[in-house]
Amino acid sequence: MIAHSFTGEVFGPAQRLHGATYVVDATFRRPTLDENNIVVDIGLATQQLGGVLKTLNYRNLDEEPDFAGVNTSTEYLARVIADRLADAVHAGALGDGARGLAGIAVTLRESHVAWATYERGL
Amino acid sequence: MIAHSFTGEVFGPAQRLHGATYVVDATFRRPTLDENNIVVDIGLATQQLGGVLKTLNYRNLDEEPDFAGVNTSTEYLARVIADRLADAVHAGALGDGARGLAGIAVTLRESHVAWATYERGL
Amino acid sequence: MIAHSFTGEVFGPAQRLHGATYVVDATFRRPTLDENNIVVDIGLATQQLGGVLKTLNYRNLDEEPDFAGVNTSTEYLARVIADRLADAVHAGALGDGARGLAGIAVTLRESHVAWATYERGL
Amino acid sequence: MIAHSFTGEVFGPAQRLHGATYVVDATFRRPTLDENNIVVDIGLATQQLGGVLKTLNYRNLDEEPDFAGVNTSTEYLARVIADRLADAVHAGALGDGARGLAGIAVTLRESHVAWATYERGL
Amino acid sequence: MIAHSFTGEVFGPAQRLHGATYVVDATFRRPTLDENNIVVDIGLATQQLGGVLKTLNYRNLDEEPDFAGVNTSTEYLARVIADRLADAVHAGALGDGARGLAGIAVTLRESHVAWATYERGL
Amino acid sequence: MIAHSFTGEVFGPAQRLHGATYVVDATFRRPTLDENNIVVDIGLATQQLGGVLKTLNYRNLDEEPDFAGVNTSTEYLARVIADRLADAVHAGALGDGARGLAGIAVTLRESHVAWATYERGL
Repeated sequence: MIAHSFTGEVFGPAQRLHGATYVVDATFRRPTLDENNIVVDIGLATQQLGGVLKTLNYRNLDEEPDFAGVNTSTEYLARVIADRLADAVHAGALGDGARGLAGIAVTLRESHVAWATYERGL
Repeated sequence: MIAHSFTGEVFGPAQRLHGATYVVDATFRRPTLDENNIVVDIGLATQQLGGVLKTLNYRNLDEEPDFAGVNTSTEYLARVIADRLADAVHAGALGDGARGLAGIAVTLRESHVAWATYERGL
Repeated sequence: MIAHSFTGEVFGPAQRLHGATYVVDATFRRPTLDENNIVVDIGLATQQLGGVLKTLNYRNLDEEPDFAGVNTSTEYLARVIADRLADAVHAGALGDGARGLAGIAVTLRESHVAWATYERGL
Repeated sequence: MIAHSFTGEVFGPAQRLHGATYVVDATFRRPTLDENNIVVDIGLATQQLGGVLKTLNYRNLDEEPDFAGVNTSTEYLARVIADRLADAVHAGALGDGARGLAGIAVTLRESHVAWATYERGL
Repeated sequence: MIAHSFTGEVFGPAQRLHGATYVVDATFRRPTLDENNIVVDIGLATQQLGGVLKTLNYRNLDEEPDFAGVNTSTEYLARVIADRLADAVHAGALGDGARGLAGIAVTLRESHVAWATYERGL
Repeated sequence: MIAHSFTGEVFGPAQRLHGATYVVDATFRRPTLDENNIVVDIGLATQQLGGVLKTLNYRNLDEEPDFAGVNTSTEYLARVIADRLADAVHAGALGDGARGLAGIAVTLRESHVAWATYERGL
């Protein structure tokens, strides 16, 4: 649940400071299941995703140093979250089984009519 | 899609400036249908609800004079919108058929796990 | 999944022959559960609701004798279905336990932004 | 995510040991908002509901002493959860503001086509 | 919200004149974001999609010259809409940024249990 | 609506006998539509999917010989169902038109926050 504003005429009234709820889903992909018959440890994945979101939630993104001069669009934020989750996978934070993951996608739904997904390999 | 902050320890991290998407539903209630077999003219109702939302959307509610010193909680905003729609009904903006409406409820969904509804008579 | 048209200027372009998918939910209400700890036999209720819908589905309602000269609005159809289910309850088609039901509500969702509910006692 | 079986011919194949995911929503109702402009402290409410669910989740309800000889139907479980939340309200676990609550409703959705709600006063 | 009928025994009762609500989503895909950090101008995309849908909404497709002798199945209509949006992209109606789009997908949901998607390059 | 337990520390409390509702969607993919302008006969597809689910529904999977010694995770069950549907396609049970299908995906949603999809060629 963040506040932010956008720069650029294309954004119309969204150039004003406003806000959004993002419901965030992470999807993990792999060619074959691990030895436990799962794609990923959903407990660890939920925990890591929660950790990433905690650094963004209840904030005014216009004042976050990480995003200085950046349009924090839904699609941009999807990439930020996917990249941070990918870092967590590579660091082993999703368990050893997660080393067999082939890709990740993060979807941010800002309402029932607008969402963005960023997909990348692992 | 509004920005706002809350005052009061009960709000925890939501005391910071943050934001929310509200998906807004209005429900109209009456004991019997009008002569066209409808509860309300859905075209006019959508138009009036859209007009009310336009005065709130893409704004920082902390800076709106109408809400000075007020916690613009989801439940409070549901009441504001319901009352403004009720005014529109009484002013005839939803058509003559709408004069037979008995009640109105406005629901604001801020995410898939949190919502508030305000119900009132007409 | 029905076709129909409406009579009356209030309906605008919906005066033309068009159509709709209605996703239909029936809700049953009672003060205390029956001896099996249930509100209603969901199998029988689904069967009876399915039977009612079969008489309406894949039809042009403008040509159904039951609806001659009637605007088959979403709210009107909700009542038709609720009344037919109420008849089934009274006839014992939902089982003996259903005789303790106090009320029924039928909701027709015609899209993600429009729906109507009809509620009645039993 | 519980396992259970039912006793009674009305349940058909659900007399066998099977299971269900219940997505649980709690709704709180009051005539006027508290001094913070809210119905209830959503953080405390979520915490208390989570605590109630933790005593039920990932279990075979047939083996829980609390439910010996009971059909743990969706509607029955909705009442169990509502009553436990009501106890929490009365014990002050949802905060002082929650003492102004007038009612509570608990909905368990077991799939996209079946759910049950239990409503009670406070 | 269209009326139509189908030709072919495979369609069973849907050979009769009936109707459907289609909830239509368009998804745009590109390898990298544009200079504003967005995939597409969602305002222009919504406007163009709305323009395409306006030519189909509240009609009996059996009487539209464009669809003479054609089974206007959900999957067929998804293609029609995707192709018309692709034409709009190529004509510049979604803005200069949209020239970097790589693909488009259109999904029509006719109910909670049936939908079709058509995907194509741009 | 199945009961099952899991083997492996990664599953935490889900090592106990518990249960789940799976809402199951099957998606069929092909490069061009068949002569009726459809991807697949949705009636036959629903019937075949229903037949596959009937062999799993209202059961304790721990006691099914087919799954002896297997973690019947959501992702594993998605594959089982997809493979059985693929067999049905190859056996002609989805009609001659279905011989042009290129792929199939099966999604099992166990709640509003957890799901798994298995995709394969045909």
